Amino acid sequence: MLDKITELLETKKYAAIRTLLLEENSADIAEIFEELSDENLILLFRLLPKDTASEVFVEMTSDKCETLIRSFSDSELHRILNELYVDDTVDIIEEMPASVVKRILKNTDAETRLAINQILQYPDDSAGSIMTIEYVDLKKHYTVEHAFSHIKKTGVDKETIYTSYVTDNERHLIGVVTARDLLLADREETIENIMETNVISVNTLDDREDVAKLFEKYDFLALPVVDKEGRLVGIVTVDDAIDVINEETEEDFAIMAGITPQEKPYLQSSIWRIFLSRVPWLLILMISATFTGIIITSYEKALSVYVVLTSFIPMLMGTAGNSSSQSSVTVIRGLSLGEIKFTDMLRVQWKELRISFLCGITLAIANFAKLYWFDRLVLGNADITVQVAIIVSITILVAIVLAKLVGCTLPIIAEKIGFDPAVMASPFITTIVDALSLLVFFQIAGLFLPI
Amino acid sequence: MLDKITELLETKKYAAIRTLLLEENSADIAEIFEELSDENLILLFRLLPKDTASEVFVEMTSDKCETLIRSFSDSELHRILNELYVDDTVDIIEEMPASVVKRILKNTDAETRLAINQILQYPDDSAGSIMTIEYVDLKKHYTVEHAFSHIKKTGVDKETIYTSYVTDNERHLIGVVTARDLLLADREETIENIMETNVISVNTLDDREDVAKLFEKYDFLALPVVDKEGRLVGIVTVDDAIDVINEETEEDFAIMAGITPQEKPYLQSSIWRIFLSRVPWLLILMISATFTGIIITSYEKALSVYVVLTSFIPMLMGTAGNSSSQSSVTVIRGLSLGEIKFTDMLRVQWKELRISFLCGITLAIANFAKLYWFDRLVLGNADITVQVAIIVSITILVAIVLAKLVGCTLPIIAEKIGFDPAVMASPFITTIVDALSLLVFFQIAGLFLPI
Repeated sequence: MLDKITELLETKKYAAIRTLLLEENSADIAEIFEELSDENLILLFRLLPKDTASEVFVEMTSDKCETLIRSFSDSELHRILNELYVDDTVDIIEEMPASVVKRILKNTDAETRLAINQILQYPDDSAGSIMTIEYVDLKKHYTVEHAFSHIKKTGVDKETIYTSYVTDNERHLIGVVTARDLLLADREETIENIMETNVISVNTLDDREDVAKLFEKYDFLALPVVDKEGRLVGIVTVDDAIDVINEETEEDFAIMAGITPQEKPYLQSSIWRIFLSRVPWLLILMISATFTGIIITSYEKALSVYVVLTSFIPMLMGTAGNSSSQSSVTVIRGLSLGEIKFTDMLRVQWKELRISFLCGITLAIANFAKLYWFDRLVLGNADITVQVAIIVSITILVAIVLAKLVGCTLPIIAEKIGFDPAVMASPFITTIVDALSLLVFFQIAGLFLPI
Repeated sequence: MLDKITELLETKKYAAIRTLLLEENSADIAEIFEELSDENLILLFRLLPKDTASEVFVEMTSDKCETLIRSFSDSELHRILNELYVDDTVDIIEEMPASVVKRILKNTDAETRLAINQILQYPDDSAGSIMTIEYVDLKKHYTVEHAFSHIKKTGVDKETIYTSYVTDNERHLIGVVTARDLLLADREETIENIMETNVISVNTLDDREDVAKLFEKYDFLALPVVDKEGRLVGIVTVDDAIDVINEETEEDFAIMAGITPQEKPYLQSSIWRIFLSRVPWLLILMISATFTGIIITSYEKALSVYVVLTSFIPMLMGTAGNSSSQSSVTVIRGLSLGEIKFTDMLRVQWKELRISFLCGITLAIANFAKLYWFDRLVLGNADITVQVAIIVSITILVAIVLAKLVGCTLPIIAEKIGFDPAVMASPFITTIVDALSLLVFFQIAGLFLPI
């Protein structure tokens, strides 16, 4: 497709390009446009009809949006902005430099500008920040027929017409009606009789992640957002909820891998930005890993006598680290999905205690068998005495139990005291668990060997 | 709420319970029901009106569904099943033991049974397995008015009435019309004139994850599923797509943490099941970690002379492990979101090479400063000679570069040869990287010290 367009561009067959593009969905056109040079992008963008142009515009990455905005005249910019939903305009504004924002605000009409400024004031992770104001507003005394004609008249500018909101004269939300209710009802029926009055709504300041969870739970297509006084101020639609779910998931993955979450996709990010998102964590973890170094140094003499013990350090630390991240990731996801709460802590710990005991016993036996029967008797490695095999096996059991308890407890406590539990995951817990398992190893070794 | 109901249950005020429940959304009723004893669950379930009962039924966990089904008479089961969408029935069937499945199939009418059996035959991760057959079917010669009355007549049983599908006489999909198009069009207009003919559809055998991605990309509410001949066989709705996204995310998290993915929520799973999902990975990783032990053993003599080197092993392995998981998780997510493709491999490697060099240099300098200025000069640790500081710092640089290259490359190759790239993440790559960084350490040490 891109090849075809490049070819047509060379021969300046713009009409053909236009026909070709208009067969595509806006999201696909945006994908093609991402690959064009700035010059060609500006050229081809002007070929699109007004409504397609704005649909494509919101799908582009922020760099390309900026390029386009800079190429627009004020009247062109005004025309595009007029076609956008307020939530999309806000998304774009949040990514633009101040000078571009100024031009955007200058070219929107007063009412929209007011709405944009309001939405921009809500905290980044709030329901208010992801809502839009283009919803269908009905009155309870309307008939279904009246509602249809109201939707037909005003619906073209609304982000969704599948859920309509019924408000009283003070804009208090008193009911919702879905297009399904309308389509299945008799035309003479009044809205009051078919509307759902047990409305599930969210507050402007609610966490956007909790809002997204409501969509999963109730299978909604849109959710109303109300202010403290219960007045309807906007709606959140399911596509925005999906975006929130994805962004939050990406954040969790990034944090668990020791990366400061980034908004831009990897391939579009600069080396320098990626470097900055990674290096602080590596530095912190490198420094915290020196604790394990200190522990080893303090047993330096013992290790110079029983060098064989050294060879088990990576395995023990690795096994403990893997055990703890099994527990911590499970608990972190449970917390983030709302399946696990702070009040479940004891239940989780008791569960993990038993699981860790089962895992610990299994690995200890497997390890003892390997060391004693295979390494010592079959391979004839004389360094591995019965004592050594016992020390390593007991350490595995104790380390796994400790690792799993630390792994399941820290994320729950983190969430309770207001930290992101994902931050407590892999690398940090691993550092703690590394140190713990080394201490256990040397303590247990001390029981059997004169160190 | 649960307390209130328990109280009313004790005094047998069933009418009051019913009123209380009917104010709640079905998803909330299901949540309350999950907490009840089997006996009370069966009792309260019978209080619900037919349509609410089936909505609550599909929201319950499989254990409770089974309890309920076992308590139903054949006619009750028939009534509930009649209200379910086929995709929900299939979901329930997949979780039930054979005897229950038999009863379910016995109590569905012939047409639905045929559809269920067809859907059950599609592979677990295919579009066919998550689709439903209750969609609105229009003909192109219908007027909008006719379409409305058709929807009003048949829509009550359809999973969505917001997208209608236009088929010819051989059931080939020739267009789609959204309820939005219908509501905004004139009533005399024919469907042919307002339908979208560039239909984006999926094939029954397409990967359900790819299907979910189409929802994210195009912001659809439903997607048609066609067979090889282009005949419409079902639809997938956005709520199912959200479920798929969540399930796949959970799978990725589990696999990255070295856990075989489980369908049941953590708190509902038995100790034994969780144990079985974790212990094989711990065993495999424990055994593979013995490679690092072998490497250490082969440098045993050197280590007994320069014991100080031992104390750096955890830090070096940890830093390399963290570096590689930063890269691998980034690439795995990029692959899973479709942002990175196999053809991007060289681009990714070149990017990671430069990033790893920046990270490596930074950490090497920080480490050298710490060892030389702080540990040696300030703390007066005589073991840490200039050579040792240089050895450790160079190892950090080389290990980070190797770790990041391994971390970014293996997932891409895994995906190319048909493995799940997530399997290649944290624990496995870490094992490889652990071994590599140890080898680098001893090689570089050998250049500066007589070992």
